[in-house]
Amino acid sequence: MRICSIIIGLLLSVVTWAAEVKSPNGNIVLKFSLKDGRPTYSMTYKGKDVVLPSHLGLELAKDKHASLGLGERDLMDGFTIEKEETSSFDETWQPVWGETRDIRNHYNEYAVTLMQQWRENVKSSRPGMQLQPRRHHRHIIIRFRVYDDGIGLRYEFPQQPDLNYFIIKEERTEFAMTGDHTAWWIPGDYDTQEQETQESKLSEISSRMHDAVNWGNSSVAVFSDTGVQTSLQMKSADGLYINIHEAACLDYATMHLELCDDFTFVSHLTPDATGLKGCMQTPCTTPWRTVMVSDDARDMLSSNLILNLNEPCKIEDTSWIHPTKYCGVWWEMIVGRGSWHYTDDVLSVDISTFDYTKSKPNGRHCANNETVKRYIDFAAKNGLDQVLVEGWNIGWEDWANMWKRDVFDFVTPYPDFDIKMLNDYAHSKGVKLMMHHETSSSTQNYERHIKEAFELMNRYGYDAVKTGYVGDIIPRGDHHYSQSMNNHYLYVIKEAAKHHIMVNSHEATRPTGLCRTYPNLVGGESARGTEYEAFGGSRPDHTCILPFTRLQGGPMDFTPGILETKLSTWSDNTSWVHTTLCGQLALYLTMYSPLQMAADLPENYERFDDAFQFIRDVACDWDDSRYLEAEPADYITVARKAKGTDNWFIGGKCDENGHKSVIRLDFLDKGRKYDCTIYADAKDAHYETNPKAYTITRKTVKAGDVLKMTEAPGGGFAISLMAK
Amino acid sequence: MRICSIIIGLLLSVVTWAAEVKSPNGNIVLKFSLKDGRPTYSMTYKGKDVVLPSHLGLELAKDKHASLGLGERDLMDGFTIEKEETSSFDETWQPVWGETRDIRNHYNEYAVTLMQQWRENVKSSRPGMQLQPRRHHRHIIIRFRVYDDGIGLRYEFPQQPDLNYFIIKEERTEFAMTGDHTAWWIPGDYDTQEQETQESKLSEISSRMHDAVNWGNSSVAVFSDTGVQTSLQMKSADGLYINIHEAACLDYATMHLELCDDFTFVSHLTPDATGLKGCMQTPCTTPWRTVMVSDDARDMLSSNLILNLNEPCKIEDTSWIHPTKYCGVWWEMIVGRGSWHYTDDVLSVDISTFDYTKSKPNGRHCANNETVKRYIDFAAKNGLDQVLVEGWNIGWEDWANMWKRDVFDFVTPYPDFDIKMLNDYAHSKGVKLMMHHETSSSTQNYERHIKEAFELMNRYGYDAVKTGYVGDIIPRGDHHYSQSMNNHYLYVIKEAAKHHIMVNSHEATRPTGLCRTYPNLVGGESARGTEYEAFGGSRPDHTCILPFTRLQGGPMDFTPGILETKLSTWSDNTSWVHTTLCGQLALYLTMYSPLQMAADLPENYERFDDAFQFIRDVACDWDDSRYLEAEPADYITVARKAKGTDNWFIGGKCDENGHKSVIRLDFLDKGRKYDCTIYADAKDAHYETNPKAYTITRKTVKAGDVLKMTEAPGGGFAISLMAK
Repeated sequence: MRICSIIIGLLLSVVTWAAEVKSPNGNIVLKFSLKDGRPTYSMTYKGKDVVLPSHLGLELAKDKHASLGLGERDLMDGFTIEKEETSSFDETWQPVWGETRDIRNHYNEYAVTLMQQWRENVKSSRPGMQLQPRRHHRHIIIRFRVYDDGIGLRYEFPQQPDLNYFIIKEERTEFAMTGDHTAWWIPGDYDTQEQETQESKLSEISSRMHDAVNWGNSSVAVFSDTGVQTSLQMKSADGLYINIHEAACLDYATMHLELCDDFTFVSHLTPDATGLKGCMQTPCTTPWRTVMVSDDARDMLSSNLILNLNEPCKIEDTSWIHPTKYCGVWWEMIVGRGSWHYTDDVLSVDISTFDYTKSKPNGRHCANNETVKRYIDFAAKNGLDQVLVEGWNIGWEDWANMWKRDVFDFVTPYPDFDIKMLNDYAHSKGVKLMMHHETSSSTQNYERHIKEAFELMNRYGYDAVKTGYVGDIIPRGDHHYSQSMNNHYLYVIKEAAKHHIMVNSHEATRPTGLCRTYPNLVGGESARGTEYEAFGGSRPDHTCILPFTRLQGGPMDFTPGILETKLSTWSDNTSWVHTTLCGQLALYLTMYSPLQMAADLPENYERFDDAFQFIRDVACDWDDSRYLEAEPADYITVARKAKGTDNWFIGGKCDENGHKSVIRLDFLDKGRKYDCTIYADAKDAHYETNPKAYTITRKTVKAGDVLKMTEAPGGGFAISLMAK
Repeated sequence: MRICSIIIGLLLSVVTWAAEVKSPNGNIVLKFSLKDGRPTYSMTYKGKDVVLPSHLGLELAKDKHASLGLGERDLMDGFTIEKEETSSFDETWQPVWGETRDIRNHYNEYAVTLMQQWRENVKSSRPGMQLQPRRHHRHIIIRFRVYDDGIGLRYEFPQQPDLNYFIIKEERTEFAMTGDHTAWWIPGDYDTQEQETQESKLSEISSRMHDAVNWGNSSVAVFSDTGVQTSLQMKSADGLYINIHEAACLDYATMHLELCDDFTFVSHLTPDATGLKGCMQTPCTTPWRTVMVSDDARDMLSSNLILNLNEPCKIEDTSWIHPTKYCGVWWEMIVGRGSWHYTDDVLSVDISTFDYTKSKPNGRHCANNETVKRYIDFAAKNGLDQVLVEGWNIGWEDWANMWKRDVFDFVTPYPDFDIKMLNDYAHSKGVKLMMHHETSSSTQNYERHIKEAFELMNRYGYDAVKTGYVGDIIPRGDHHYSQSMNNHYLYVIKEAAKHHIMVNSHEATRPTGLCRTYPNLVGGESARGTEYEAFGGSRPDHTCILPFTRLQGGPMDFTPGILETKLSTWSDNTSWVHTTLCGQLALYLTMYSPLQMAADLPENYERFDDAFQFIRDVACDWDDSRYLEAEPADYITVARKAKGTDNWFIGGKCDENGHKSVIRLDFLDKGRKYDCTIYADAKDAHYETNPKAYTITRKTVKAGDVLKMTEAPGGGFAISLMAK
């Protein structure tokens, strides 16, 4: 142990730092230098080490195209410093939707231009002279932005003769941690993020990997027994919360982290079908690699670092983008009582020739006129904006994992779904239908149909689409998180924007804050959502981890609100929801999203109508958000002020151990009174044994009052505060 | 040698043939049987063996998706005969365009249904019982069509529980030749067919492979040193002409042939990025595998076997499809005097942001208003229908082999190409422009833009597009001739048909007669075209081979008509055309295509205006065609009757040895007189030393007259016979 410390001490002592950049409040210090020609950085927070000296660089791939001139030299070492620039930035901007009305983007920046030089002996064009030396020089910029809550760094590649095109073999960005931190991680995987989060010491990742990946999803593509995904939340022994993620991943492969010797993570990009990681043309940049840090876990949740590192909104007219509360024809199929497909009477279908009108309906197809009308009535009655309908379009009989390219056409309804009538009916009641485009990961097929699909949406008045990427990618060999797939998701977002359509992508790559630039990306899945409560369940602490990890990059369509937690009361499914009923209500606050589903069946909401009142009331766009309490995997309590109002909503969610909260209402307007409704776990409530025991209390409160809440094991609470 | 014969004798003797099917005239006999449960066929012609007993079957790949139930058993052996059906068919149909007005489709058919059965021990759902046997049975059909000029065979997979989806590891269709035939072959390759044809014995293929592939194309993907492409033309020692190819390759990988032990070819399919060969969903079929045979080489050229094995036309209204003679802004760039790109002043471009109006023109950009107008004038003056313009659209600065996905947008012209003015100008003169869509093999990009691209064509009055697939395929890892790429080419053809656009695909997969089903596929390249005369040249016998090989599947946009055979007379290019001037004229007859280019520069045609008269006159659609003489790689002479007229045109083309033809005009209308113009090599003409020496003779002829023609080494002749 002592020897280790001495070695680290020596290592630190030999680095002569070329630059030192402080965050605006001085808490974070970023240092940069070249160590034997290798770019190296480190980071401290309030004087404590966060990232020990870590190398930066990229390995390039050789290519058969000589014209690329690649792979002669990696972008790893042999650098000299050519230029250094420091600057400061302070701006406040307003998101189209978000947790707060204003977001401050305040950082100090350090950009260092590095040069690589080498000689190559090339054949002379003049006769007689055999070989002539030719000088090469390459320039790259590493840019650091140092915020009070973390740092971002990225590689920039200006256009230049000796670096015009290149192929990335691997990015080698290191994050050397200071010790054996506790980490909340999911296995590094090229195709899924739906595993349950593991909590372990860094040193335990390897031994825990087998259990972590052994969960039966068809698309598993784990690359290493120490590979994990980002955003990775950690906590150090000395109480620092550290989070590694990325921002603005545009036309670049998604980054994973591989724990190498000791406690050093190294970036690992998602490959394409040939195993390479990226085809680049200068000028270009990598995404930002981010390290957030604080000694207060709440800062992890309130941070806007990821959004701030993305480009401002590129959509000029955003008037058609709006927060949305919706219900949907969905849970019934997820639980297994109904089906997406129309007929059981066929081995497989070719949608270009199969005649559904002559096939025998299975009687369980949910997206039928009668059911959808019932959902529309329910939405209209309860102030929900939209009704998602899954299984409306032909092709579901054999849609997944068959390597079918032409699985859906996205425009042809099943015979029992009258698209015109239903949209007309919905609109007559002030409700919209929400479109569903499951692609079955056949992206080529989706891109072929996307324009007609969006035109159909425009024709019938849909303005939001839930996309899906279940199963393996077609073109075969590609992965969900590769450069080309990330480009595909962005292509869909951009095409949708042209048609004034909001996008909610399921099974797509995890977000990196692109919703700032393209705010029609209103939601996404990219994690283990509520559906898993019907597939055996998720741990009660799951939703106390996701805001620290998955939600760093953007909102999640988690689909909360399952008030009937015991599915066997209405289906053959023996799974049950691993929260209390009030825990479900709390998620509308703790899992921020401008797109919130009321995911349970209308008939279940009718049975718990008094509790459903909270879902009717709660906003999904905010002027302000205050994280009152937070500890990863333990509890989260947040108060939010509804956009354009003086109403506040508070939610608290805890793990299997329960939690007691003391909430000081010091954020309310002074001198104003509020109608307060408290939805709380009953005294004997318990997510396992008594989940549906709850109390509803009404009173009048004012600024400075204190509310004492007790959350049951796996429970939570929800409070509405309506300004009088 | 004797031992070999004995073994073959024994082999033949043990096969008890289950079925024997004769061609309508009895010359061809096809036999089929199961040999130890393996499907086996053989074929004779006039009592001579053509295909010795050869196995049929497919190897299937295992897949991670258990639902596919694959790979338990290959489709190779263990078969029993379940059902046999024989039938006859005789029909005459009319192609939209073609070599003859009527095509007879006359065959005897044998379809054998084969069954495979096996047991599997599966877990019982009932407790107590551990394993229960489950019976599987699969049914496939092998269908043979026996014509007077060859056979077609294919595998058919009906929809069935035990064969619903499957993945092909390899197709194992054997073609056992009888001896060491002479073959005209190009190396088996997943990405190019532009090699020069090799003439060798089968036994010499392996030793010749290295030289055959060593030719500098960037996309070479040779899979074996005995792999060759189809159509493969052979000649046996006893004088049989044998040709192996395929018909109706739709959504299936292109087949190559690998010469295994002795003289047996086995099919080898083009893989996808993961190395597998095809994802299938029943009901489905493979393409037809064809063996043509005759003791007269001319029958190889007049055969309609490939067309007959394709489905009838699927385009209802074909009125917009028409044969086309065109010139184009093209040869000048191929030779190197001009450029496709607009500016040299940039390392690379991003077409979404690069401002061409602010870039420095290189002064060599050919697709400019002035040049295009000159070509329009030339076309109008000489009765050419269209003017192809390459390099009209932005993105050519760095278009090839850079792994650029977004290389072209197919709608934005360079600043010096006024798309509206030029189309208006052309139309005012009765000429159309021909569109050019080079995709740089970034098929994802092309599919994203194809609708806008075709809409632009409709808006400006284009009705034909030349597509191009230079370089490696994007998505990376895929190949030009894979199942997914073959599907892409067909997608383009179908989308084009929706927009009433004719397609001429360059660097795409070699054709298999799909132009019968989709006659808007008016041309293609898929072989070594005239452009190679500017890249060092092709052998003089090249065009005496192509009609036996490449043209079997459909017409080629060979771009003949280079009358100025010495390129250095007008450029810095030291290459020269390896034919005489008259040889170039002959190609308009011997290389059948409904799409014929007059490929030379207008100023060169003006210099040889008397010879150019033949190009002005010659038709490119025919009521009748008579192959008068033919020998692979030696000479081809053909007479064709122009569609809807009594005019005939005759062309003769020979190899480097010259050729003497005696042409009996017995096909002319009796009692009618014809103005005959003969374009012949001058006495001392020679493709190398004196290529541009020609004579033009005019006379009046009638049926029964005889013309004696002498073709110079690398020469040819062209004759027009205009009915009086």
